[in-house]
Amino acid sequence: MGVNSNRVDPFETIKIQSEIPMYQSPLEIHKVRLPPQRTTLQKLRHRLSEIFFPDDPFHGFKNQTSFTKFLLALQYMFPIFQWGPQYSLNLLRSDIISGLTIASLAIPQGISYAKLANLPPIIGLYSSFVPALIYSVLGSSRHLGVGPVSIASLVMGSMLSESVSYSQDPILYLKLAFTATFFAGLFQSSLGVLRLGFVIDFLSKATLVGFMAGAAIIVSLQQLKGLLGIVHFTSKMQIVPVLVSVFKERDEWSWQTILLGFSFLAFLLITRHISLKRPKLFWISAAAPLTSVILSTILVFSMRHKINKIAIIGELPKGLNPPSSNMLYFSGPHLALAIKTGLVTGILSLTEGIAVGRTFASLQNYQVDGNKEMMAIGLMNIAGSCSSCYVTTGSFSRSAVNYNAGAQTAVSNIIMASAVLVTLLFLMPLFYYTPNVVLAAIIITAVIGLIDYRAAYKLWKVDKLDFLACVCSFFGVLFISVPLGLGVAVAISVFKILLHVSRPNTSVLGNIPGTPIFHNLIQYKEAIRIPAFIILAVESPIYFANATYLQERILRWVREEEERVVALNGSALKCIILDMTAVTGIDTSGIDTLCELRRRLEQKSLQLVLANPVGNVMEKLHESNILDSFGMKGLYLSVGEAVADISSSWKAQP
Amino acid sequence: MGVNSNRVDPFETIKIQSEIPMYQSPLEIHKVRLPPQRTTLQKLRHRLSEIFFPDDPFHGFKNQTSFTKFLLALQYMFPIFQWGPQYSLNLLRSDIISGLTIASLAIPQGISYAKLANLPPIIGLYSSFVPALIYSVLGSSRHLGVGPVSIASLVMGSMLSESVSYSQDPILYLKLAFTATFFAGLFQSSLGVLRLGFVIDFLSKATLVGFMAGAAIIVSLQQLKGLLGIVHFTSKMQIVPVLVSVFKERDEWSWQTILLGFSFLAFLLITRHISLKRPKLFWISAAAPLTSVILSTILVFSMRHKINKIAIIGELPKGLNPPSSNMLYFSGPHLALAIKTGLVTGILSLTEGIAVGRTFASLQNYQVDGNKEMMAIGLMNIAGSCSSCYVTTGSFSRSAVNYNAGAQTAVSNIIMASAVLVTLLFLMPLFYYTPNVVLAAIIITAVIGLIDYRAAYKLWKVDKLDFLACVCSFFGVLFISVPLGLGVAVAISVFKILLHVSRPNTSVLGNIPGTPIFHNLIQYKEAIRIPAFIILAVESPIYFANATYLQERILRWVREEEERVVALNGSALKCIILDMTAVTGIDTSGIDTLCELRRRLEQKSLQLVLANPVGNVMEKLHESNILDSFGMKGLYLSVGEAVADISSSWKAQP
Repeated sequence: MGVNSNRVDPFETIKIQSEIPMYQSPLEIHKVRLPPQRTTLQKLRHRLSEIFFPDDPFHGFKNQTSFTKFLLALQYMFPIFQWGPQYSLNLLRSDIISGLTIASLAIPQGISYAKLANLPPIIGLYSSFVPALIYSVLGSSRHLGVGPVSIASLVMGSMLSESVSYSQDPILYLKLAFTATFFAGLFQSSLGVLRLGFVIDFLSKATLVGFMAGAAIIVSLQQLKGLLGIVHFTSKMQIVPVLVSVFKERDEWSWQTILLGFSFLAFLLITRHISLKRPKLFWISAAAPLTSVILSTILVFSMRHKINKIAIIGELPKGLNPPSSNMLYFSGPHLALAIKTGLVTGILSLTEGIAVGRTFASLQNYQVDGNKEMMAIGLMNIAGSCSSCYVTTGSFSRSAVNYNAGAQTAVSNIIMASAVLVTLLFLMPLFYYTPNVVLAAIIITAVIGLIDYRAAYKLWKVDKLDFLACVCSFFGVLFISVPLGLGVAVAISVFKILLHVSRPNTSVLGNIPGTPIFHNLIQYKEAIRIPAFIILAVESPIYFANATYLQERILRWVREEEERVVALNGSALKCIILDMTAVTGIDTSGIDTLCELRRRLEQKSLQLVLANPVGNVMEKLHESNILDSFGMKGLYLSVGEAVADISSSWKAQP
Repeated sequence: MGVNSNRVDPFETIKIQSEIPMYQSPLEIHKVRLPPQRTTLQKLRHRLSEIFFPDDPFHGFKNQTSFTKFLLALQYMFPIFQWGPQYSLNLLRSDIISGLTIASLAIPQGISYAKLANLPPIIGLYSSFVPALIYSVLGSSRHLGVGPVSIASLVMGSMLSESVSYSQDPILYLKLAFTATFFAGLFQSSLGVLRLGFVIDFLSKATLVGFMAGAAIIVSLQQLKGLLGIVHFTSKMQIVPVLVSVFKERDEWSWQTILLGFSFLAFLLITRHISLKRPKLFWISAAAPLTSVILSTILVFSMRHKINKIAIIGELPKGLNPPSSNMLYFSGPHLALAIKTGLVTGILSLTEGIAVGRTFASLQNYQVDGNKEMMAIGLMNIAGSCSSCYVTTGSFSRSAVNYNAGAQTAVSNIIMASAVLVTLLFLMPLFYYTPNVVLAAIIITAVIGLIDYRAAYKLWKVDKLDFLACVCSFFGVLFISVPLGLGVAVAISVFKILLHVSRPNTSVLGNIPGTPIFHNLIQYKEAIRIPAFIILAVESPIYFANATYLQERILRWVREEEERVVALNGSALKCIILDMTAVTGIDTSGIDTLCELRRRLEQKSLQLVLANPVGNVMEKLHESNILDSFGMKGLYLSVGEAVADISSSWKAQP
């Protein structure tokens, strides 16, 4: 059929449709098949493997000798064994270059972000040392630059400061920070081990765009404290109290600080702009922070006798990460807070780390295994929490620099770590005179890039509900609180899914002339209604959440079709065909609905036919024994065959 | 094609496929169309009308005179105006019979259920009077028998008793009960007004089966207090404390009570059994409760001097419902509890009421409008809360009796109400000697029917996850608490949806010989792979929740196909076709995934083709300007056309 026709007269089409059986041997109407029988156990195993091992991580292991298997397992656990053997001098050279480049970024960033989390600056440096080493052994990404990141630092700072103040009880604050880091790591690695990676997928891109923008604004405003040299400042994170305390303390503003701050801010922003325009010149923005730290330090040092109004970092302890396992805090009033903070920072840093890893992996066409990354990041945080580090992950800025500087393997992280090591051992005194204002400038420059208005606009253009989620997380973070803002946004994203399921789309199909194809009448103007039939496509699984709706909606379609027919006095409606192609699942409520629908239509002496039910739907229909009630003439392989066979049968007995 | 072939040789099929274009004029490859342009506003309006007015409630109003519109509106608000005019004597006769029958059931039930909610028995009778009258005016179901129901009573009793005890502070308890009723009504009617009826759809049948069974068991065990004549009994609802206090107070068991109780229980169960076997004899079980109340009362009265160990109802106030609006409680420590109780009982009773209404409506083929029912039930509860009634709804037992007794209209409710009125005015003293034990027996008989093990078995057979939800709500109710049990079950049902979305099914399609139809290779043994192609059907919308998964899964399919081809050294894979028929929606993350996928496959010099994207997906692809990147050869109307066109183009330039 469809061979000799681009005719567009409906009744012609009907003839074509109904004549098929004349051409064809009866065999040509194909039976709808059941998928091969499987036991509950088999089904369960298949389902679980799809949920937990969709990437089939062990396909490499199939039919290998046990020794190879052992090697593969080792490489799976420690990717360093994959690339280690082929490691060469040229690789080392490029790794050294990139390693030193990110180090020059990592040191000022570390100090700044630590302040963002209300932690002593030194913690930031510690956090750029141990975790980097651990990741270089466990991580599967070649370009991830590991260290503290703005978002996680901000969130940790805000959540902990809500109930404990560093200035009042530094020890407790530190304890909570390490404990939160520990739980973050535990949470991350267990997500990896339990292969629940998909949990982070529920932070949709839309949510993150809004969240990051909101966080960036909060952070930047917070930095006004440093930029304006304000001493008494709120520990709150919402926009209102921050702005209030900025303008309430106007007498504390110091013009020297402001001058210094804004000149360096300008410098940093310009360098950033240059590197954005010319990716070749990435090193300019990469080197800028360290440069400005050095310059400002020299400046302040040289003028230390004239001006004393500029706040400086001051004494930093020399030496390596002290162990902090003794500071983990597993009982007492604040445990809940620590766990909550751990979870939120954990999931946020995880999301960032994985996203960054995937981004650069896809640039160079290698895979990063989400679950493996989670284990790596988790373990590095657990280890970190025992060595005076706070939450770390793959940082976008560092990874970008790392990638542009031509990093080849995780060795660049080792190089960076060693550079940090040297700093920790010998160079700490140099930071004595580094003014806080410069750190503020560095932070602002770093987070400003998180405001991605283009993405937001695209969301608006393509998907209004995504945009809504984005806006909600944005304002949630700005006005309420970080976890709540996130919560709301996730809730909206989930609600969107539920809405899609509980109000699925149903559309009327018509035949595309000269083909056996049936398509949405609204989308395809050329599609033609088949008299006496109404063909409905149900565009969702039939679940408890939409069973009632679908039943009423379909009955309404039928009612409207009957009214239409009467209005045009066309041939009366005789048969309803449900195109089940998109009904990818059905549950008990759905099955009951089908039966009920069938009963109701029969009372109107209308025939209900199912076209092309997919495998698992067929299974369920079969198991619930309603297939018999539909019988031979109630199930067809395709809408085309259904129309052809039924209309011909009408011809047979008019 | 498909005309002269039931051949099953793959290469034949390929020939057929690739030859189509030779037969056909180039026109025969059909363009994928965009749906007609709509403004954001139009889309929004359409979406909203689908969400809130799927049943198009006002279709009757179209092109009518304003007077008719007014009449229709009146009838819409007060269905009594629909059937009122045609009301006749015969209808009245059958309504009187059925009305009296349900009255004989309603009076003992009212008293018993009130005790179930730890309320004074009289409240139960009040609750069978006012709400019934209001429903008969507003309700759209002809067979709904209105009054207190076991589940709602149980839930209210359990939730309130957790923090307030009737015996210690009756006034406060009453206040809370009425307030909860008020909020239940408010919640229900606002659901109706806001047309959020679909909220109750999230209590899936599976959940309810488990919940009801659990509740029934709890209730029955609670009745052991009455049946055994125990005086000191726990106010808790969990199974453990109940059983404990049953056996701890063994010395309080009184053999007279036990004897009386179990004999009447046996009587009631037998009558129930008879009516179940012979629906014609429904009146036996309908009359049984009143009979046993009368008999037991006479018995106890006659022996009142000999035995005093049998607890009796005692003094009941004569007269009509006293107003209780002054007892509503809108401030103070227990407000939250009242609201919570109101929400839970409200949604439960609503679910039962709507379900019952729909059941009997479909037996007689008339529609009940869910949202309208909600308004009716809500208003009747609000009114109830101001006239000393507690939560009421359509009760299954009463409606069944009502239906079997041949009720024709809501008038039967008016008759029942008047019978209750007479009782309230004159017959209350008769209940003085009614023993509580009989009420216990009545309750047990009523709730025993809620344990539907057949349904549970069917759930197990058809859908394991539904069964899980059922089991969870069952044990949740038994061991934890009613709201929590429900919460868990709903969570599982929702989780099931999310799981379906975040781990959608993808399947490989093959051609069914002699047709242009492509189908799941696993389901259809006769389907044939097309060499050099892999055709994948994605069986879900592509959302943020599954975007990453789908990308990895599809790449895995490709990898496996390549391995397969190598193993069989067949012709190398050249083209991936995604059958988008079941992809009923896509969001920004999904679009990014498609681009990323395309990029990755191109790097393997594989072609990615989309077949049959539905309307709104086309729209989104268009709005995000990625259609151009796919271009003419990247979109096809059907898999068949894609295969035909592409393979022929290969022939063209080998």
